[in-house]
Amino acid sequence: MRIAQVAPLYESCPPRLYGGTERVVSYVTEELVRLGHEVTLFASGDSHTAAMLEAGCEMALRLDDRCKDPLVYHLIMLDRLRRRADEFDIIHFHTDYLHFPLFADCWEKTLTTLHGRLDLPDLPVMMREYEMMPLVSISDAQRAPMPWANWCGTVQHGLPRHLHRLSNGSGGYLGFLGRISPEKAPDRAIEIARRARLPLKIAAKVDAVDQEYYESKIVPLLRDPLINFIGEIGEADKGAFLGNALALLFPIDWPEPFGLVLIEAMANGTPVIAFGRGSVPEIIEDGVTGFVVDDIQSAIAAVPLALQLDRRAIRACYEERFTAERMARDYLALYQRVVSRRSAPLRLVGATGRAAAD
Amino acid sequence: MRIAQVAPLYESCPPRLYGGTERVVSYVTEELVRLGHEVTLFASGDSHTAAMLEAGCEMALRLDDRCKDPLVYHLIMLDRLRRRADEFDIIHFHTDYLHFPLFADCWEKTLTTLHGRLDLPDLPVMMREYEMMPLVSISDAQRAPMPWANWCGTVQHGLPRHLHRLSNGSGGYLGFLGRISPEKAPDRAIEIARRARLPLKIAAKVDAVDQEYYESKIVPLLRDPLINFIGEIGEADKGAFLGNALALLFPIDWPEPFGLVLIEAMANGTPVIAFGRGSVPEIIEDGVTGFVVDDIQSAIAAVPLALQLDRRAIRACYEERFTAERMARDYLALYQRVVSRRSAPLRLVGATGRAAAD
Repeated sequence: MRIAQVAPLYESCPPRLYGGTERVVSYVTEELVRLGHEVTLFASGDSHTAAMLEAGCEMALRLDDRCKDPLVYHLIMLDRLRRRADEFDIIHFHTDYLHFPLFADCWEKTLTTLHGRLDLPDLPVMMREYEMMPLVSISDAQRAPMPWANWCGTVQHGLPRHLHRLSNGSGGYLGFLGRISPEKAPDRAIEIARRARLPLKIAAKVDAVDQEYYESKIVPLLRDPLINFIGEIGEADKGAFLGNALALLFPIDWPEPFGLVLIEAMANGTPVIAFGRGSVPEIIEDGVTGFVVDDIQSAIAAVPLALQLDRRAIRACYEERFTAERMARDYLALYQRVVSRRSAPLRLVGATGRAAAD
Repeated sequence: MRIAQVAPLYESCPPRLYGGTERVVSYVTEELVRLGHEVTLFASGDSHTAAMLEAGCEMALRLDDRCKDPLVYHLIMLDRLRRRADEFDIIHFHTDYLHFPLFADCWEKTLTTLHGRLDLPDLPVMMREYEMMPLVSISDAQRAPMPWANWCGTVQHGLPRHLHRLSNGSGGYLGFLGRISPEKAPDRAIEIARRARLPLKIAAKVDAVDQEYYESKIVPLLRDPLINFIGEIGEADKGAFLGNALALLFPIDWPEPFGLVLIEAMANGTPVIAFGRGSVPEIIEDGVTGFVVDDIQSAIAAVPLALQLDRRAIRACYEERFTAERMARDYLALYQRVVSRRSAPLRLVGATGRAAAD
């Protein structure tokens, strides 16, 4: 198929640093190329891809001090793409809702993956106005605030097969990887580790918005010699960090829409002890790849059990369910479904005279 | 003509409180209706107008706690308008650049007034991409950062003729009206008043972003018994505040694109002593409606001269140059010019295949 992948311009594909959405777009894009498709990637100019690259800006906007208004570059990229829409069989957007007005008239060749949380007050207004746009969720749980939206599938994220490899957890520590923020609950991870009497390594960045939380709530907890805060780590160090961990702690306090680190741990054969919010019960197989728990007490009880899990079986589960190839094939199936709708009967909706699928 | 006026949705038309752009849109709209045109106003649902109102949202978004993402409502409003573009002879936008992608293909029935400062780093990128969009500046000075843009005229703002009336400055004070911020330079106004030995009344709001500046730089200056800080005043109190002032001080330290308060003072017959930045030399007639100065020393020297100016002549100058009727007629002339271009030869530009006027 002739496929356009449309990434946000905040980070490159893949990102140099943090940037979950652009990372997933990169994985999908490279895998679709590998599977023999003709792929064009709309992304920042410092992206690296085997697809054809259409640069929406010179470099990732989050790293570009000259850029004060990212909307400018996104609007221009989307509008230029619209004028070339005929060149593609399917256009796959990862740009939230920003493209809806420009592509409402050719919705039948688009697919939009929503990467973020959906419990934002203005989002339903947009989704009702553009009810014809075919949407993909990254977990079933993500849909909860808008079960009525035009979902045509859930596609869980996947990682390139050889990005990580089975490791043995020989570092002897529990791991926490992500952001320092109340919803990621590093304080809970610290309590679990202390009460399980195991060392905890925290690899996490602190955003400006979370600095106050970090200083007031987390720094005082770092005095314990069991707790080791190592700051933000790069993509290249993630494998070693996760692979050497006995288990990953994921004691979230929010409805995480996916949680890429869960499958990154799995790809290293590392079990996960995760609170059962959001996507977690869909990703973790309880008693196989980790344990889904409801509170700190159960998390502590799960630690010795997690250490007994078969790391080989965890890696096998990853290979079966969470490779980039599985993700790409899932998307290809949805592309086919969207494209074939074109010949299906349409109904006219509302005063705007737009067409939507039955 | 069948005219669409498209306001931002942050404030109602007219605004309940502050909001320069929406206020001007309201003045233009009501005057065009008065002149017999068929006008549709796209604005927030709590707007008041003699035109047909198309509500882009229930109430002004800046006052709506439920709204976290104003972009949603702006995009929907603009897209709905695009689908009705045929109903209008001309569509007059006051929404920065946000409508450019949606209306690039019917640029020849649009006019866009840029209300803000133009020295923003990403703006030229947008203006070059959409070089066909006909633009209006609110002063010639405003164009300085982008003299090459597709300007088709300057239309200075105007006020409804009976909004203010000739007053006598009997309050015996100098006035400062606006925001407390470094670029409005209230500290200079205080110094001018102190050294001219006249009372100064400061009617100004303090935005959150300027709170620190207010407390550290301005509060210490308010101890002087000559200086009276009265806080933010409503639209209804502006006339009395300006009309009772001996003169208005406008010692700005930035390239003000217009400065509505200058003509509001003028409409009350009140002279203005203004620093010659941005639009000021285009608005103030030196020695007639006030004095254009370059520094504090000249401002102080201008105070006694300003008190001798003929307030009747100032009001007469306002009536000649700055009524809403003059503004509306200026816009009507530009609407005609844009519309008549339709039959003029077009040249094709760039790879996007868009058409632009010669």
